[in-house]
Amino acid sequence: MPKISEKGQAMPSSPVRKLVPFAEAAVKKGRTIYQLNIGQPDIKTPEQALQAVKDADMEVLEYSHSAGNQSYRDKLANYYNNLGFDISSDDIIVSTGGSEALLFVMGSICDQGDEVIIPEPFYANYNGFAAASGVTVKPIHTKIEENFSLPSIAEFEKLITDKTKAILICNPGNPTGYLYTENEMQQLAELVKKHDLFLVADEVYREFAYDGRIHHSVLSLKGIEQNAIMVDSVSKRYSMCGARIGCLVSKNKEIMGAAMKFAQARLSPPTFAQIAAEAALDTPQEYFDEVIQEYIERRDLLINGLKEIEGVKVANPGGAFYCVAELPVEDTDAFAQWLLEYFDLNNETVMVAPAAGFYSTPGMGKNQIRIAYVLEKEAIRKSIKILQAGLKEYTA
Amino acid sequence: MPKISEKGQAMPSSPVRKLVPFAEAAVKKGRTIYQLNIGQPDIKTPEQALQAVKDADMEVLEYSHSAGNQSYRDKLANYYNNLGFDISSDDIIVSTGGSEALLFVMGSICDQGDEVIIPEPFYANYNGFAAASGVTVKPIHTKIEENFSLPSIAEFEKLITDKTKAILICNPGNPTGYLYTENEMQQLAELVKKHDLFLVADEVYREFAYDGRIHHSVLSLKGIEQNAIMVDSVSKRYSMCGARIGCLVSKNKEIMGAAMKFAQARLSPPTFAQIAAEAALDTPQEYFDEVIQEYIERRDLLINGLKEIEGVKVANPGGAFYCVAELPVEDTDAFAQWLLEYFDLNNETVMVAPAAGFYSTPGMGKNQIRIAYVLEKEAIRKSIKILQAGLKEYTA
Ligand SMILES: Cc1ncc(COP(=O)(O)O)c(C=O)c1O
Ligand SMILES: Cc1ncc(COP(=O)(O)O)c(C=O)c1O
Repeated sequence: MPKISEKGQAMPSSPVRKLVPFAEAAVKKGRTIYQLNIGQPDIKTPEQALQAVKDADMEVLEYSHSAGNQSYRDKLANYYNNLGFDISSDDIIVSTGGSEALLFVMGSICDQGDEVIIPEPFYANYNGFAAASGVTVKPIHTKIEENFSLPSIAEFEKLITDKTKAILICNPGNPTGYLYTENEMQQLAELVKKHDLFLVADEVYREFAYDGRIHHSVLSLKGIEQNAIMVDSVSKRYSMCGARIGCLVSKNKEIMGAAMKFAQARLSPPTFAQIAAEAALDTPQEYFDEVIQEYIERRDLLINGLKEIEGVKVANPGGAFYCVAELPVEDTDAFAQWLLEYFDLNNETVMVAPAAGFYSTPGMGKNQIRIAYVLEKEAIRKSIKILQAGLKEYTA
Repeated sequence: MPKISEKGQAMPSSPVRKLVPFAEAAVKKGRTIYQLNIGQPDIKTPEQALQAVKDADMEVLEYSHSAGNQSYRDKLANYYNNLGFDISSDDIIVSTGGSEALLFVMGSICDQGDEVIIPEPFYANYNGFAAASGVTVKPIHTKIEENFSLPSIAEFEKLITDKTKAILICNPGNPTGYLYTENEMQQLAELVKKHDLFLVADEVYREFAYDGRIHHSVLSLKGIEQNAIMVDSVSKRYSMCGARIGCLVSKNKEIMGAAMKFAQARLSPPTFAQIAAEAALDTPQEYFDEVIQEYIERRDLLINGLKEIEGVKVANPGGAFYCVAELPVEDTDAFAQWLLEYFDLNNETVMVAPAAGFYSTPGMGKNQIRIAYVLEKEAIRKSIKILQAGLKEYTA
């Protein structure tokens, strides 16, 4: 029997899906599960995005341009201009989710064995895209006690070798919720300029910045236009994860040229989804105001609730819709599974993501979990109670 | 300024897109262009596929399962069962086009520097997926005089090394239109069994088999179930290229396990498109009967027309909707560009794909073109006249 590749063996399994069989078994037992383990919000997709697809009249569902429909890229450029970024449609390649943009970026800047430095904990699928692209992830540790803020530049410099091609940040962060300050972004800009590296910023949660904090995009940094690559997505912004539309943005023509060849090989991003994404750009500000207010209330509820549980430590997320919490248990993999297999409170339980999968340093994050506040407040309230009772029983 | 990767530099440009700027300039001059260069059919998408998307009612456009919606995979399994293949929904991973399935397959079976043998000329983007995956393509030459039929097994064996992981065929072929015989498939089966290789069959043109010929799927071969991997797509079958839905199918659990990790990393295939693809499975047989009749008429018109042009040699395609023609010119790259830049017949010209891009052996196919018969008969009739007049002027 022919063998699969080492790459295929080494590809990480999704840390949030390992628990799915246990969740399914719990549901079969008639249990209600609050799914706080994945970033699938319950927020409604803007109506005009869904309506645009219904209204689209076509006889042949054709391939679009490999870089995405021109009309969509024009409107996207306009959206970035309104944010103050000097971007034209030529600086944008529309991708099949932010996921594909990340894959294009890795392929365009890294060869087999090249290194990318990423503050950890980080979005687990960076490991997958890196493995698929033959890229080595060099994690740089950030601390829950410091809200997972940027480590000192000296720590970065320790990791830079002649194989280092880029620093990849997620801003605001999944799983940390951390929003980088202007000063931190400035430090990163100087660092990449000094060492001739790319600065790749995954900004798919851009709109979700709370408490009056301002999001500082990699595209707003002066003097590193040739180093800056931005990854974006409509998945979270408009709660349309199933569309599968993202993009990569850069003023660096070489990068865009290389990425375009990856884009041409796979022909085009999905046509229906581009129609929806284009229409979504007309979403009125009130939609965001409401959604952000909702997320803030959920976050406050969650963070305050977690803080009251004995032995639980939690960061103060300034953006996105995740938080990392440290629990008084040794192995959250086992605990999360136990919650599904053996625990319930009034026949309800909760599904959380063990955080080890968000670290690439072995052993790290074993006593942490990530919680996505993607459900209504009542569900969050109940989930906190379940966690509290579960921890009490589990640690007894 | 940071540099792009060698991989990014080495990625091939699409051979069918290089001419786009010249085509655009010709259109600006008011010229009509018959686009026979790409596989974008003018055939109507089945109405129920488009209607299903209009009818879909959802409030949140959610991620689907990473392997694709269960309901779609169930119906797909049923479609394969009706073709006589012993396939269940677990043997299917829905992908974003056949393109993504090819990428998953390469990643799952090949490490950096591993080799895949492919009869050439072949679908140009195999080069792109191979380059992206660090895979070396080993081309094996097939001849226009033999309709591009399978080379002798001895030729394959000459190329097999300990780096060889798979043989990749396209059946029926793009760009050749060649449909493998049962005997050829049987020979390939024995070969991969003997050398413990995967046999990957790209069958996205399965339905397009003409003149009473029967398509022999890799999934119908007995005794190589663990070697067989099939790549499929709805793009051509239902003329819905813009959906971006394909799949990979295999009974080999290890392969499916590895591919599933690639699938999870990118989260899910597009949701709207899966709805359309699922509905498309109910397309009545009359639709296919009509479409196939139309393609046969176009093919006959095209092949007969080409044969009458002095100095033109053409194969007899038994399937798909392409043909390769040899022209009495030295370099079809230059000729195809000339047709767009300097030639017209009553202010009309034609766009064809230079065939060199479908070969990976340097210098091969330089006097060949690929023509896609994706336009109406009247357009094909005119295109032949334009080609004939163009060749006459060009070679004078
Ligand atoms: C940080 C981050 N980047 C990228 C993605 C990819 O999202 P998509 O492919 O849906 O755009 C996600 C999804 O959860 C994410 O959290
Ligand atoms: C032979 C072959 N394989 C795969 C594909 C990929 O098609 P898609 O990604 O649209 O399914 C094509 C498209 O033209 C093709 O011709």
